[in-house]
Amino acid sequence: MLDYSALRAVAAVVQTGSFEKAAGVLHVTPSAVSQRVKQLEERLGVVLIARGNPCTATQKGEWLCRHMENVGMLEGELFEHLPALVGPGEVRQRVTLNIATSADSLGTWFVAAVSNFAKSSPYLLNIAIDDEDHTAEWLQKGRVIAAVTSLEKPIQGCRRVSLGTLRYHATASPEFVARYFAEGVTPEAIASAPALTFNQKDRLQGRWIRQALGEDLTYPTHWLPSTQGFLEASLAGMGWAMNPIQLAREHLETGRLVELIPGTPLDIPLYWQINRLAADRLTELTREVTLVAKHRLLR
Amino acid sequence: MLDYSALRAVAAVVQTGSFEKAAGVLHVTPSAVSQRVKQLEERLGVVLIARGNPCTATQKGEWLCRHMENVGMLEGELFEHLPALVGPGEVRQRVTLNIATSADSLGTWFVAAVSNFAKSSPYLLNIAIDDEDHTAEWLQKGRVIAAVTSLEKPIQGCRRVSLGTLRYHATASPEFVARYFAEGVTPEAIASAPALTFNQKDRLQGRWIRQALGEDLTYPTHWLPSTQGFLEASLAGMGWAMNPIQLAREHLETGRLVELIPGTPLDIPLYWQINRLAADRLTELTREVTLVAKHRLLR
Repeated sequence: MLDYSALRAVAAVVQTGSFEKAAGVLHVTPSAVSQRVKQLEERLGVVLIARGNPCTATQKGEWLCRHMENVGMLEGELFEHLPALVGPGEVRQRVTLNIATSADSLGTWFVAAVSNFAKSSPYLLNIAIDDEDHTAEWLQKGRVIAAVTSLEKPIQGCRRVSLGTLRYHATASPEFVARYFAEGVTPEAIASAPALTFNQKDRLQGRWIRQALGEDLTYPTHWLPSTQGFLEASLAGMGWAMNPIQLAREHLETGRLVELIPGTPLDIPLYWQINRLAADRLTELTREVTLVAKHRLLR
Repeated sequence: MLDYSALRAVAAVVQTGSFEKAAGVLHVTPSAVSQRVKQLEERLGVVLIARGNPCTATQKGEWLCRHMENVGMLEGELFEHLPALVGPGEVRQRVTLNIATSADSLGTWFVAAVSNFAKSSPYLLNIAIDDEDHTAEWLQKGRVIAAVTSLEKPIQGCRRVSLGTLRYHATASPEFVARYFAEGVTPEAIASAPALTFNQKDRLQGRWIRQALGEDLTYPTHWLPSTQGFLEASLAGMGWAMNPIQLAREHLETGRLVELIPGTPLDIPLYWQINRLAADRLTELTREVTLVAKHRLLR
């Protein structure tokens, strides 16, 4: 049978990032944690934890962590019916659910959804951030049990719910537009005006250029991996950027930001994909996510 | 002599994350980029680029990229004196400077500093985010030319300037405090009230507990890698969190957030460390960073 004290040790190391901190969470010594993990790895003949600072799960380790989440959810239901299972003085470990989202969703609507869920649920949440085109991989690789993703295609073993559309506008400060786009948004202007790019996975600027100008163009860019930083840097005139309408709206209304080409939004449809096994036990989470999305995203 | 077309190819691949996009930036074919990089790697006998999605620099590749930044800065000065060096129809590649900062600094004062600099400088900026205890490693490993760091000790080959103190308060919504801390901030309450933790490198919650209660305690936590998300989740009652005073102040004043223990801030002194070779050419950057820090951080 599975050695659950070892499985729990692996999950705790991955979650906290170190054997020492896992020991603190599990109320045992670091060497006990180390021994449990090592014995399990030897028995399975695979490495479950990549030792480092922080320690992370290997691909096989990730699946084991997701299994522990699912078991934790089942245990939670069992304890409801048989509270005596928790021994006197024993502290129940709370189950942590791993969820992936894009930074822009987190910065515009997702915190409201997960806060609502977290307040009335026994679960802790571990929110991971990646580009909306890449969060689906997190699900596929078993690193999370649910994700906000731009992938419409249902992922194997997952349920998919359509959330609505996150709308972006290509925006900059009026001074920036006057300095670089006085002659309009020409290919020459695009080649000299610095854009803002979130990171190497962020293709929104290039997609907007293709949609607006009908061709692929290269452009100089600053790199700034922060949704709020993007907005601030656009307002300060550092570059032009694709900002979500939820954050840009008030600044467009007051004229502190202007669209490079009025009326040319870029729409990104978003989906909620959730592991089927988990979905049944997390109907509340899906409910909160879809409810908030309905209010904050475009239909 | 150094083959600068190859060096430029390596730098472009690292910056854009792919051979295809680097080709676009350099106005050559992807196979030309690939060939240049490969020949240089073969000549040096080391791998410069870890092929992947995205492609990243190896440790040796990073040093080469920093060298290209320094050369680019020197070229910039040369072109000022000899503009004819830029051939007719030739587009000058703008130099990108790599800088590391903490997410909290970015979210409270650093965007203002780099925006000011970027607007009046020919450089593009690539802002990397890591924990303030870890940005110094980015400098030491040659991945950036300057960093906002909590490391007071001068890094070899770098100049160090004291920036001031980023002050944090342990805060939560009034409802959250009433629910979990009605009996005060006791070890039992800490063991049951979910905290918010940025990521595994974030130790601020634990440091505050030690400072406030005089002992190390474990605590349940949600994980949320976003400065703005932290603030929003605290306001929504998802957990208690160490929020920078710059973001928390107005909410503390209106009572939407309260301190867990009034008058117990946690102060993190910050430093600006900048590569000596680059520092002479980037006095303006250091000036803007220290100027904004002076206004926004505590002395």
